[in-house]
Amino acid sequence: MSFTATCLTLYPEAFPGALGVSLLETARRNGIWALETVDIRSFSRHKHASVDDTPAGGGPGMVLRPDVAAAAIDSVALEGRPLIYMTPRGKPLTQALVRQWSAGPGVVVFCGRFEGLDERVIEARQMEEVSVGDAVLAGGEIPAQYLIEACVRLIPGVLGKTASTEDESFEGDLLEYPQYTRPRVWEDREIPEVLLSGDHGRIARWRREQAEETTRRRRPDLFARYQRRDGEER
Amino acid sequence: MSFTATCLTLYPEAFPGALGVSLLETARRNGIWALETVDIRSFSRHKHASVDDTPAGGGPGMVLRPDVAAAAIDSVALEGRPLIYMTPRGKPLTQALVRQWSAGPGVVVFCGRFEGLDERVIEARQMEEVSVGDAVLAGGEIPAQYLIEACVRLIPGVLGKTASTEDESFEGDLLEYPQYTRPRVWEDREIPEVLLSGDHGRIARWRREQAEETTRRRRPDLFARYQRRDGEER
Repeated sequence: MSFTATCLTLYPEAFPGALGVSLLETARRNGIWALETVDIRSFSRHKHASVDDTPAGGGPGMVLRPDVAAAAIDSVALEGRPLIYMTPRGKPLTQALVRQWSAGPGVVVFCGRFEGLDERVIEARQMEEVSVGDAVLAGGEIPAQYLIEACVRLIPGVLGKTASTEDESFEGDLLEYPQYTRPRVWEDREIPEVLLSGDHGRIARWRREQAEETTRRRRPDLFARYQRRDGEER
Repeated sequence: MSFTATCLTLYPEAFPGALGVSLLETARRNGIWALETVDIRSFSRHKHASVDDTPAGGGPGMVLRPDVAAAAIDSVALEGRPLIYMTPRGKPLTQALVRQWSAGPGVVVFCGRFEGLDERVIEARQMEEVSVGDAVLAGGEIPAQYLIEACVRLIPGVLGKTASTEDESFEGDLLEYPQYTRPRVWEDREIPEVLLSGDHGRIARWRREQAEETTRRRRPDLFARYQRRDGEER
């Protein structure tokens, strides 16, 4: 069985979206992974296929009903896959989680909408609540695609041989070093001399310094983790 | 002029993707915002419309050429909009940044691919480097859609009156409280009694406690910020 991503959503037409281009699309056509959608609305047995109702205790917006959500979830065979709920309330998606899921049989992703999903379904179905980024969206479809793209690109055979999945941002808690390519001079700006020196040791040291400096300045959270780990290894 | 998002990408067919559904799609059709794409590849004057070359100093993968990227960027009239480069090396997108951009004339978003963009273009065109989440993707298209959805949903008239954009996760550094709706009993699980009490003060206190507890457990980073601010206000 190839890696299978099943998305439960009120907007199946949002898929494949940006997943349907480039190397991921080619890999999907070649059967390396599969994408399925489940239309949550088709599981409503209410008037006008209604799926939501007002929040208990008051407040703005609407909440996704537990009976409808559970019926949609129960229609999917998990087959060892994690049941993930995309919500800003979740634990942040990390590259470590991505690596773990990417090596498994796939993911089942429930895309939230409205003010969220009734808490009882999350508990009863033991959904894993996961967030992507620190902004608020209209729904979980884009975060679901984020998670799926992150997982699928790590499956062997998806990226070409020229690409790397090791020496990149977030692996080892450092952001990546700056990159340069031809032409050697562009708008009077030159490629840093060290990169043209052919001295592999010097290049590696320069890149590490650049990666450390960028991480320290832009992501003090990652840099603290990097320093702790670096200290432990000594 | 309505809010306009212009995306520079090697895969224009990735758009509108998940932006083309629900209330955002309705708002776009109603002229509340506009979405444009610019095909980076069409600005290549190289053989086979090549856009990339090997990294200076060695290493795996390919780097986007500065001449091609700059030609694509220079074809766009910024008209007061920020020029944003989606890259895992960037500063994290926050709800504060989203609020700021959402109130302006729009955004111009450059979607990275391969090992990244030649650093000289980023400097020369003063691109604002922004990241979404802590995982690595195949390209910047999904993060661009994330940023655009986050901005557009805050534009007056996009979300219905029933929705709230104030009492939600990340506003005020707290994750949202758990939500419940009908039926009152589902699979033997009841809605917490306090939410049915009609006592607005008690409900508000319970929700704040729940929000604080969830944030403390799942997002110690946000909770520390929340406590600092709470302390300053006292």
